[in-house]
Amino acid sequence: MSLTKAVCLPSSIQICRHIWTHFRRACATISGYRIMRPDDANIVGNVHGGTILKMIEEAGGIISTRHCNTQTGERCVAALARVERTDFLHPMFIGEVAHVSAEITYVSKHSVEVQVNVIAENILTGTTKVTNKATLWYVPFSLENVDKIVEVPLIEYKSNEQEIEGKKRYEAQKMERLETKQRNGEIIMPVISPEPFSVGFSQSSLIHLVGPSDCTLHGFVHGGVTMKLMDEVAGIIAARHCKTNIVTASVDAINFHRKIKKGCVVTVSGRMTFTSNKSMEIEVFVDADRVFEPEKYRAVSAFFTFISLDKDGKPLPVPPLKVETEEERKRFEEGKVRYLQTKAKRQTEKARQQ
Amino acid sequence: MSLTKAVCLPSSIQICRHIWTHFRRACATISGYRIMRPDDANIVGNVHGGTILKMIEEAGGIISTRHCNTQTGERCVAALARVERTDFLHPMFIGEVAHVSAEITYVSKHSVEVQVNVIAENILTGTTKVTNKATLWYVPFSLENVDKIVEVPLIEYKSNEQEIEGKKRYEAQKMERLETKQRNGEIIMPVISPEPFSVGFSQSSLIHLVGPSDCTLHGFVHGGVTMKLMDEVAGIIAARHCKTNIVTASVDAINFHRKIKKGCVVTVSGRMTFTSNKSMEIEVFVDADRVFEPEKYRAVSAFFTFISLDKDGKPLPVPPLKVETEEERKRFEEGKVRYLQTKAKRQTEKARQQ
Amino acid sequence: MSLTKAVCLPSSIQICRHIWTHFRRACATISGYRIMRPDDANIVGNVHGGTILKMIEEAGGIISTRHCNTQTGERCVAALARVERTDFLHPMFIGEVAHVSAEITYVSKHSVEVQVNVIAENILTGTTKVTNKATLWYVPFSLENVDKIVEVPLIEYKSNEQEIEGKKRYEAQKMERLETKQRNGEIIMPVISPEPFSVGFSQSSLIHLVGPSDCTLHGFVHGGVTMKLMDEVAGIIAARHCKTNIVTASVDAINFHRKIKKGCVVTVSGRMTFTSNKSMEIEVFVDADRVFEPEKYRAVSAFFTFISLDKDGKPLPVPPLKVETEEERKRFEEGKVRYLQTKAKRQTEKARQQ
Repeated sequence: MSLTKAVCLPSSIQICRHIWTHFRRACATISGYRIMRPDDANIVGNVHGGTILKMIEEAGGIISTRHCNTQTGERCVAALARVERTDFLHPMFIGEVAHVSAEITYVSKHSVEVQVNVIAENILTGTTKVTNKATLWYVPFSLENVDKIVEVPLIEYKSNEQEIEGKKRYEAQKMERLETKQRNGEIIMPVISPEPFSVGFSQSSLIHLVGPSDCTLHGFVHGGVTMKLMDEVAGIIAARHCKTNIVTASVDAINFHRKIKKGCVVTVSGRMTFTSNKSMEIEVFVDADRVFEPEKYRAVSAFFTFISLDKDGKPLPVPPLKVETEEERKRFEEGKVRYLQTKAKRQTEKARQQ
Repeated sequence: MSLTKAVCLPSSIQICRHIWTHFRRACATISGYRIMRPDDANIVGNVHGGTILKMIEEAGGIISTRHCNTQTGERCVAALARVERTDFLHPMFIGEVAHVSAEITYVSKHSVEVQVNVIAENILTGTTKVTNKATLWYVPFSLENVDKIVEVPLIEYKSNEQEIEGKKRYEAQKMERLETKQRNGEIIMPVISPEPFSVGFSQSSLIHLVGPSDCTLHGFVHGGVTMKLMDEVAGIIAARHCKTNIVTASVDAINFHRKIKKGCVVTVSGRMTFTSNKSMEIEVFVDADRVFEPEKYRAVSAFFTFISLDKDGKPLPVPPLKVETEEERKRFEEGKVRYLQTKAKRQTEKARQQ
Repeated sequence: MSLTKAVCLPSSIQICRHIWTHFRRACATISGYRIMRPDDANIVGNVHGGTILKMIEEAGGIISTRHCNTQTGERCVAALARVERTDFLHPMFIGEVAHVSAEITYVSKHSVEVQVNVIAENILTGTTKVTNKATLWYVPFSLENVDKIVEVPLIEYKSNEQEIEGKKRYEAQKMERLETKQRNGEIIMPVISPEPFSVGFSQSSLIHLVGPSDCTLHGFVHGGVTMKLMDEVAGIIAARHCKTNIVTASVDAINFHRKIKKGCVVTVSGRMTFTSNKSMEIEVFVDADRVFEPEKYRAVSAFFTFISLDKDGKPLPVPPLKVETEEERKRFEEGKVRYLQTKAKRQTEKARQQ
């Protein structure tokens, strides 16, 4: 194992952890792991992307709640406000140990940026691989008054530049968050006897009654629980479309505009919007329904990208999506733009690294 | 083993267990307990009917699988074929201990009848109450050849009458099972902007990807897992209709015509069919979808009855169901017949006991 | 209770239960079963020791809480104070049914001793084997005032000797419990690029956010939940060291000095301390962290022993632990003493039985 590789290993976070006991506020990091169980994976043994997203969010929630309570004052719980686009770099398997490490990288007056890395370790062979790098934004809400946002304690940056870079990221996500606030209201309408490979053929939805274990201390659904349900619906849509083993390849930025309360019924629905040669884009909506109240509202929406794998884990071609209506055509074109942008961005990054 | 020792051995199976090792065939009983956790209940603390149904079926599955393997020969797993109508006599609460005990009461050549009783114990006050009495029918399938039904070993009856009574029950359920085999194919169609209290307003459906922990040793879904999902959908429909705290009051006989395999996507959907002054009847369908195959089939269907409770646990009046189409009216009338039959039957039983 | 009513009680527990309602104090036993699912086991199908420890503790908690509430007076919940050394006599497998039975064997003024036996039953072959015999000590805390210890009702002993023997066990464990109260504060230091087979190479830690279903009625973590997490960490350390299939062989006495509250973040960390030819000893620490408070404290610590198995379930030689520092050498020697003491004790017992 080379030194460069060692730097990415969990031990690096452990060092930080050590410092943390002494300078808790300064070194706001956390690390943990979980062994992957059969229920975390599909029949072929690939761990669901949703399982990983849930672990990532749990680490982020703990570290930001802890940080926001370091100052004397109102007790608060950090709620997930946004997850930046996340790629699944490698599939993870049953029996592997997932190491999750989280670090606070920026704070604004009312929000906390957390960087989370996930490493899959095969404890029998000793091999490790980085599977995810995610960025999450949290906002601390008072425990006494659930609608009140609390002020975030400062952190010490290693350099001036680090703070400036963080501020840029903060401004950029703020802009994007505002933009998506509009997109709402669309409802997925069922189709009678749909054509194979059409949008109506694979579209799916589930309902979930929010239980106590889905919730934070102040009785709102963990962002990670929502993301896991979203990945589940997206995965079923992808499997219905191509009828092969599928895995989550990436998730576009997700904004959590409204909190979902304990006891709500959550409806998660999705439809395929775009296919490239080897990928499928699926749009997922989350609606919350207070049951006891007439109100029903859109809580979250996001785009998931899935790929289809053969028995050796190699990407398979995907049957093209049959678009039938004008709306579907429009969404397909928008999906294509997102696909090409991501592709271009990735190539730029590759070129820069060389 | 001395007599004194027998008394202090594990209360439930101890005496039986002792006999069982010697006369395993004769003493085919099992008993267990489980403490009710927050995740087993709704926000008000009432344990979900589905949680109880799942426990009941687990006990039945163990005892009948054990019995069917007492003879040398092919190893087999008992699969749930039918549950007789089950009443929920009292609500159960978080923190209470559910005691489940099961006994084989009749066997035919290819099926096993199991009687299961559930008692709720409050370990703080010491009070206990019988909450359920259920009858389940199992059929043993060979582990080597999943489509082959194995012969069931005989049991010893306490009396000739007991055997004759059992045979009557066996014949009656066989008839009923055949009848329901026809009812199929109906699909719940969504309604755009439905009226409050209409059928379309509360109808709901969920999808669930069948994981390893949902399945028996030969890779088919436990009947109890299916019933838990059915109760979940029915409960959400009931809550959406009356917007109060609701609990399962009873489940009509359920027939399990086709097995559901690991890796399937299960769609559970339901609609309200009838309301009396203080109860709601909900019809629930379970469809299985092999994802990798084009086929999709109706695996199970059943009627659940829910009641609405106030803060002190007393039944509340239920808003009447608004029927809008001819079909809905027909289903409402059929529901009314079932309701009146059950009511009449209950009064006859009461009169007989006095 | 009328005779007709007694007949309606759950068939299996009925006899004992019937006695119990009349002589509740005398018949202080409980028994239950649970079928082992894929998530309860490792990839090879061996049920985790932690799953078994959790079941054992659940039975102990129910029986002692029930007993401590038999007297009119303050309602209370029994909290786990100590588990005596526990051996895992045989591995258990997925699909087997675990029968857990618990009995109160001694009470002091403020504590309850519970004996728990675990039997694994293969319902296909009919074979059963005793897998565990455990002794647990519980202390009842008032539900109204969580820091107040309640008085334990007396039990009837079968003989004078039985009571005297119980008192001896009580005094012995009390002494030991006091001694371990000192051991604290040690923190597991991470190592950069550690050598294979060194202590630093396999050491691990996990974090867990305490959820509602992890907790008792008064909002503190079940001892069994903590033990399951400890076994998980110890198992990963053992697997990292020897890279084979490993199973829990035994757990040294564990003392629960401080309760862990709902909402806490629990850090479980461990390191290997000693290896014999065919076993590994792992020390595990549990620290609780209230998130909202600066305080962090050592809640539990224990030694787990694991063995490595080949494909046929036979013990494999274990690579010797490379000790590098003076501290590690000291801990290794202490581990050796524990190992030799246990070995000697087992041989004495064997000789006595012959």
